[in-house]
Amino acid sequence: MEILCRKTAARIERIVSTGQATPEGEWYDQQADEWVLLVEGGARLRIEGERQDRALAPGDYLLLPAHCRHRVTWTEREPLTVWLAIHFAPD
Amino acid sequence: MEILCRKTAARIERIVSTGQATPEGEWYDQQADEWVLLVEGGARLRIEGERQDRALAPGDYLLLPAHCRHRVTWTEREPLTVWLAIHFAPD
Repeated sequence: MEILCRKTAARIERIVSTGQATPEGEWYDQQADEWVLLVEGGARLRIEGERQDRALAPGDYLLLPAHCRHRVTWTEREPLTVWLAIHFAPD
Repeated sequence: MEILCRKTAARIERIVSTGQATPEGEWYDQQADEWVLLVEGGARLRIEGERQDRALAPGDYLLLPAHCRHRVTWTEREPLTVWLAIHFAPD
């Protein structure tokens, strides 16, 4: 993970995944809103309470509100999967 | 310009340029910091006080601090030039 820009209001990160997924049974549960854009590669994301994964292709983006529990269930390895993530300061 | 995400802390926009440039002698002078990423196409940007334009290719990004006067001197038309811009709330 590389921080591209860090300001009081938000932090911009570039994240490269090489096939990683969130370990089974674990969830991300974040304090603040995060906006993610899939730049390259591909991924599947599961939001807690949803019945199936969301498939993400380059150009797809979504807002993960604070405490929206989610897991990355799959990322493409070839080509590498590149994300842009923006972590907002709490409102 | 399309707003992809609007939060108190920051606003994320997708901007498509089709050859536009800032009119000669005009400058952007913004109240708050803006981070821009060139996604597709190409552009040249002039920061006031610099001797020459900065050339931007896909993947290039920069932070334009509040009141950093700047102009877009050229954008590529084919393919279209696509920007991702993040407008931060003032510190």
